[in-house]
Amino acid sequence: MLDDGLKAAGARVRAALSEALAPMGALPVVAAMRYATEGGKGLRGYLVLESARLHGVDETTALPAAAAIEAMHGYSLVHDDLPAMDDDDLRRGRPTVHRQWDEATAILAGDALQTLAFELLAGAAVAPERRVALISGLARAAGARGMVAGQAMDIAAESAPEPLSLNEITRLQAGKTGALIRWSAEAGPLMAGADPAPLGRYAEAIGLAFQIADDLLDVEGDAGEMGKAVRKDAARGKATFVSHLGVAGARARAAALVEEACAALVPFGPEADSLRQLARFVVSRKT
Amino acid sequence: MLDDGLKAAGARVRAALSEALAPMGALPVVAAMRYATEGGKGLRGYLVLESARLHGVDETTALPAAAAIEAMHGYSLVHDDLPAMDDDDLRRGRPTVHRQWDEATAILAGDALQTLAFELLAGAAVAPERRVALISGLARAAGARGMVAGQAMDIAAESAPEPLSLNEITRLQAGKTGALIRWSAEAGPLMAGADPAPLGRYAEAIGLAFQIADDLLDVEGDAGEMGKAVRKDAARGKATFVSHLGVAGARARAAALVEEACAALVPFGPEADSLRQLARFVVSRKT
Repeated sequence: MLDDGLKAAGARVRAALSEALAPMGALPVVAAMRYATEGGKGLRGYLVLESARLHGVDETTALPAAAAIEAMHGYSLVHDDLPAMDDDDLRRGRPTVHRQWDEATAILAGDALQTLAFELLAGAAVAPERRVALISGLARAAGARGMVAGQAMDIAAESAPEPLSLNEITRLQAGKTGALIRWSAEAGPLMAGADPAPLGRYAEAIGLAFQIADDLLDVEGDAGEMGKAVRKDAARGKATFVSHLGVAGARARAAALVEEACAALVPFGPEADSLRQLARFVVSRKT
Repeated sequence: MLDDGLKAAGARVRAALSEALAPMGALPVVAAMRYATEGGKGLRGYLVLESARLHGVDETTALPAAAAIEAMHGYSLVHDDLPAMDDDDLRRGRPTVHRQWDEATAILAGDALQTLAFELLAGAAVAPERRVALISGLARAAGARGMVAGQAMDIAAESAPEPLSLNEITRLQAGKTGALIRWSAEAGPLMAGADPAPLGRYAEAIGLAFQIADDLLDVEGDAGEMGKAVRKDAARGKATFVSHLGVAGARARAAALVEEACAALVPFGPEADSLRQLARFVVSRKT
């Protein structure tokens, strides 16, 4: 059921992105932008649509914001995969953008995907002050206090003399993956002019659970099934939730976070069942 | 006089950027962001402040937009200088960001500078619908139909069998450098809710003149004085305005564009003298 919802939402978000990219012509950089937004699970776009639905915002209105977060996420993956960053050849079961094209195209495609995210939000059919709230929130989530801070900490950790503490990893991940996930869940209330705090708490918990699951998958997952390299953390001697807590401890922590996320959904009643399923999915997923 | 105006405006724009970067902490990526916005001529920020003044928008109100365009321009230079792009070691008389730090820091600093540009605009003290107009305009100018399109065409030209035609170079530059310059001049009227078309025409002409002057400087300039490498175009066999028009022809075309720019300023009377001086400056500058 969640799976159907994710798939259907993903198709509509991809269609919205495709429509936004169509007038940009046939340059390789535009093809690379499209490629970089394909093939993912679409969790962030789904969170935008579901948080919007919970606040009475119809899907047509919410779609630009859902497309925006998938563009922003796509940009972050393209740049993160670059040789100077994580140097990955495989993403979502396909060659990474710089392998499929070249590094220059990957840099530019990532750059233009970030720009596109803000362009989409500026064109959303909600009141201008709500568009500004979406834009301002996404800029804070993506910038040097949010996602980029997490990525920079991640890079700094590679050459640090000591492995990161559990607290440091938690802060790093709150930026690197947590900030965009949180914005996705806050987008619905922001579009409705409602309080984003309850869904913000929900998203903070699932964001962290998502990362713990990622660390577990790096240890236990299958590269073929996942469409990307595994066992990278241990090979690099990288401190992760699993290296600190062990497999059983990490699993228990992820389960506790799912409970925490669901507790934040109580005010929304059964309408929020899709978000409850999503919380369970992020820790049980195999890819 | 223009020189004093540029210097004074540059100092205030840098102060605004510094204030925006202060809460972002002490990560190397934040230091790199600051570094990347230092030492330039500040033409784009100046254009924002002057176009604002011409439309009765006070400088305090216009500063976030001026800081935003300098952040956006700084991002484009940092990424453009990367080894996979233009591979430059020197910029504004100092090592480029990837030489001063490393490639990963340069990629992230550029990414976060772009984000910062939108964050600054979202926080400008003008009505929300005018903030949205600024953001939407900048996104269109910077993205895959604007600046990134120009950069992508520039890269594609390097491996193209035929050198670019004059028309193609004009289109390339309208994206690569023209789009941000045009937005800078339109920012004032956009903040005032006025028609951006007259200053848009002014900016289109000076943007092209600026690029022709750049091509001339690459042929005639001094690397020490300019703070960056010269004779790069000829060494790469690159088609430029100078390779098509010759030195004298390029100079004549630039002068005609300055006249065109000044013609667009007629409705503004003597109040626009600073912009007239700027138009002359972009073609007479030595750096």
